Amino acid sequence: MPLPATQLFPVERHSLAGGVEQRDDPLATEEPLELRVNGRSVAVVMRTPGHDRELAAGFLATEGVIRDARDILDIVPCEFQRAADSTDSAPPPTGNVWDVLLAPHVTFDLARLTRHVFTSSSCGLCGKATIDAVRAEFPPQPPSPPPSAALLSTLPARLRAAQPGFSLTGGLHASGLFDLAGQLLVAREDVGRHNALDKVVGHALLASQLPLAGRILLVSGRVSFELVQKSLAAGIPCLAAISAPTTAAVALARETGQTLVGFLRDGRMNVYAGTLTP
Amino acid sequence: MPLPATQLFPVERHSLAGGVEQRDDPLATEEPLELRVNGRSVAVVMRTPGHDRELAAGFLATEGVIRDARDILDIVPCEFQRAADSTDSAPPPTGNVWDVLLAPHVTFDLARLTRHVFTSSSCGLCGKATIDAVRAEFPPQPPSPPPSAALLSTLPARLRAAQPGFSLTGGLHASGLFDLAGQLLVAREDVGRHNALDKVVGHALLASQLPLAGRILLVSGRVSFELVQKSLAAGIPCLAAISAPTTAAVALARETGQTLVGFLRDGRMNVYAGTLTP
Repeated sequence: MPLPATQLFPVERHSLAGGVEQRDDPLATEEPLELRVNGRSVAVVMRTPGHDRELAAGFLATEGVIRDARDILDIVPCEFQRAADSTDSAPPPTGNVWDVLLAPHVTFDLARLTRHVFTSSSCGLCGKATIDAVRAEFPPQPPSPPPSAALLSTLPARLRAAQPGFSLTGGLHASGLFDLAGQLLVAREDVGRHNALDKVVGHALLASQLPLAGRILLVSGRVSFELVQKSLAAGIPCLAAISAPTTAAVALARETGQTLVGFLRDGRMNVYAGTLTP
Repeated sequence: MPLPATQLFPVERHSLAGGVEQRDDPLATEEPLELRVNGRSVAVVMRTPGHDRELAAGFLATEGVIRDARDILDIVPCEFQRAADSTDSAPPPTGNVWDVLLAPHVTFDLARLTRHVFTSSSCGLCGKATIDAVRAEFPPQPPSPPPSAALLSTLPARLRAAQPGFSLTGGLHASGLFDLAGQLLVAREDVGRHNALDKVVGHALLASQLPLAGRILLVSGRVSFELVQKSLAAGIPCLAAISAPTTAAVALARETGQTLVGFLRDGRMNVYAGTLTP
């Protein structure tokens, strides 16, 4: 059985003012997920269990392997297969191994999964080359009307209300997908901010909603190059964050025409790329 | 020339109360670093430029490839080599490609760098297997006296004073290494929290200070499984964090005898593994 997203752990709470107290503290669950494609293991990510089908689908979409729900035949847990192959007694299934079966028309190129990879061949990656490669892989989406500052300022409270795990643990990131009326369409939490984004994108992909034109993605933390890259792969025209973006994130958003908003909090925000509707 | 750790970017600052203002905002620099070992490319990490030799050395140490300064012959920037091999006109060096030349006695096994890898063979990784593998690779360090709550409570302000990039941008993580008297020995900032830790460990390794018995590592954010793993590889007996640990981080610290402290702030802290000196 998969583990719950949060678990109670015994903890000793020290306070300079008030001594030591024993209590149970909720922690964010972190477990490895092994992702297979057509039976072949391609990645292991540390993630919070739950919505694993979405994570598997979203990961493959934001890494450029698939574009569409029709690219997937099925997503299946595969630990019973492993036990059957083994001469050992079957281990209890953990729910941590998932196999994505691709439709025959999809060409699966393992080399496309090599961006953050330890590789045995020289890849000669440099900042400019990466950005160029991404821009080539994800052509600009059709123009999408940007949101207004007034609308954006309403989103953090709506995402915050959909973060039960963060309220409990303080240890989970979140991503939320909104429409241009400010309605929250789906929110996901995870110890990894990439995973939270991938789960949201996977949810949309499995509902045949990609590319996500006319949508706003709000993330609970900072924005790295990789988050912009993943959001572009999903066709998201506006990415907003509670905290800071990096230089590479801003540069990529500007080059691809994405609207990038940071420090969205307390009725204020910084627009780093693109413009807002007045 | 390598880029500075923070850079000014033009930004449009919107405030619901006060309209729109144009200004320059400091952002954390994020650039890829390609790491080579004996001329072979093994990893690309997105990092904040600066202390790149430390990052290269620390990464290889915390990933279990090297243990000691004597394992390294040299760490050299290698873009001029690339230009010489090329028929194109030489690109300007970016400072983003580094080659670690290992001593002849070091057996470099690329398979040891496969924990977070997209791989073409099934690795059958599961949570328990990972934890077992790590415990086997990094045998428990000799017992080290734990710090007191009173001492720990003084560390966050000392680390904070060594985070100029965070003060500017809000977008940089930090790691600080302290002795048991609470003295800050070295602090490093980076957009990636793994990198900040690797730079601190690399600094210590290049000064022939590994393993880091009798030291405390304080990290500015949360603690994942991977951060515990990396700190164990450096022999750090006490890991403390301003924010939350995950379940896998706590489980690994308990199994290996590491002291793990979280939510170290405002004169309070949670002890998740090990004990403190009264």
